[in-house]
Amino acid sequence: MAISDVQATAEVQRTLVLILDLGGTFAFALSGAMAGIRRHLDVFGVLVLSFAAASFGGILRDLLIGAVPPAALIDWRYLAIAVAAGLIAFFWSSLIEKLRNPVGVLDAMGLAFFAVAGTEKALTFGLSPVMAALLGMLTGIGGGVARDVLLAEVPAVLRSDLYAVAALAGAAIVVGAACCIFRRL
Amino acid sequence: MAISDVQATAEVQRTLVLILDLGGTFAFALSGAMAGIRRHLDVFGVLVLSFAAASFGGILRDLLIGAVPPAALIDWRYLAIAVAAGLIAFFWSSLIEKLRNPVGVLDAMGLAFFAVAGTEKALTFGLSPVMAALLGMLTGIGGGVARDVLLAEVPAVLRSDLYAVAALAGAAIVVGAACCIFRRL
Amino acid sequence: MAISDVQATAEVQRTLVLILDLGGTFAFALSGAMAGIRRHLDVFGVLVLSFAAASFGGILRDLLIGAVPPAALIDWRYLAIAVAAGLIAFFWSSLIEKLRNPVGVLDAMGLAFFAVAGTEKALTFGLSPVMAALLGMLTGIGGGVARDVLLAEVPAVLRSDLYAVAALAGAAIVVGAACCIFRRL
Repeated sequence: MAISDVQATAEVQRTLVLILDLGGTFAFALSGAMAGIRRHLDVFGVLVLSFAAASFGGILRDLLIGAVPPAALIDWRYLAIAVAAGLIAFFWSSLIEKLRNPVGVLDAMGLAFFAVAGTEKALTFGLSPVMAALLGMLTGIGGGVARDVLLAEVPAVLRSDLYAVAALAGAAIVVGAACCIFRRL
Repeated sequence: MAISDVQATAEVQRTLVLILDLGGTFAFALSGAMAGIRRHLDVFGVLVLSFAAASFGGILRDLLIGAVPPAALIDWRYLAIAVAAGLIAFFWSSLIEKLRNPVGVLDAMGLAFFAVAGTEKALTFGLSPVMAALLGMLTGIGGGVARDVLLAEVPAVLRSDLYAVAALAGAAIVVGAACCIFRRL
Repeated sequence: MAISDVQATAEVQRTLVLILDLGGTFAFALSGAMAGIRRHLDVFGVLVLSFAAASFGGILRDLLIGAVPPAALIDWRYLAIAVAAGLIAFFWSSLIEKLRNPVGVLDAMGLAFFAVAGTEKALTFGLSPVMAALLGMLTGIGGGVARDVLLAEVPAVLRSDLYAVAALAGAAIVVGAACCIFRRL
């Protein structure tokens, strides 16, 4: 593989991680905000909770792999998306409540985005495939755990069967795919 | 600006961050200790809680900007001040209870100190002004969040309007002032 | 002391930290799993809790001294031991319940292992003796705190007298012994 190909691949990977991260940030920010609205927090409490839920997983991942300062604190887009999602949830919560189980659905979406982004970024930083999948799982469940701990509740991930398994499955698929691609190159 | 001036400025900044940090440590240690005393913890529980409340914000900030090991773990003065504040609160809690809302007042003081120290240190480590203000806010609210999470309560920052706004306002003022000063030099 | 002696000493220290770490991981994983079983979590919730309790202290220590990625995420044995302990607790919990106070006994064991491992590792990374003892204490109590916070309970370390004192005593003994040994060499 030529050097320019390697650079192009790295560039594609970075863009992929960024898009997945921002998607997960939006989903978890909505999920955190909805949980805050249900507990009758005011608008500032909702914004704090939506930022915490949206960025905790990614910040934890970046701390653990040594990528400091974390992307969520250098890149203003993470903050902007979290605040925008918090405000959307606060002013149009009736719309989001029409989903059958809004916090659950949004968690699942955020989980999917973050599990893939976390695994991908951990692989880039040279972690072994098994550990990258584990870190992808941590990134995926981190936001929901932060939200529930701040609301003094037992995190959903401990209560419902499929949560951690889904995150791990997503992460394992990424690892499998990444290994196949790298072997072929 | 001559090199010796730059060095002198950096020295002043370090001293400023240290003084603000120690002031915030004292206020949050008292606040954590008072919350523990209200929950009838024994003296060791009170000391653990006062150290956790006092140093969580600063440790989080240092982890996020990559300044490891964190100042609170290298410099013995942080530990000494937290322990002293915990013991003062434990043995003279009746004095502190005479404040109308001791935990609230101490939180506000700690918040002010830490929001400024956190912003200042983040600027020194090269974060952009907006992100430095955000990190200043995190530093300011971190101690209170750690205290309330350890007591299995919903953090005050989620419940009361002005908390996060005050931290962000303080941080924004520091950023504004710092930008003015740097431009002038 | 010849260079090969220094290398041999460093090797012995690394092996010691590893063995103590794995012992503490096993004890805290059992302790976390038992707490989860008492709260009627399903098998996946129990595994998440046993991994969180087992690795939180060590991960926190590694983050604070700047040893990233943390040992618990690079070395597969930590994960394997945590999962094995979680499954053992889940399927043979009746055996472990025969201990008079299983969570307490396992916490004490994990605390002893981790306080020593944490202090030792902090000394290796050049922290001062007092701060190494403090970090050893943090490592020792971290797992139990993570377990209780995730179950939305006030951590045992805040409620019972001897917990933090035991961790600090263990850590102080290690520091004392290490100082004696180093002075003699």
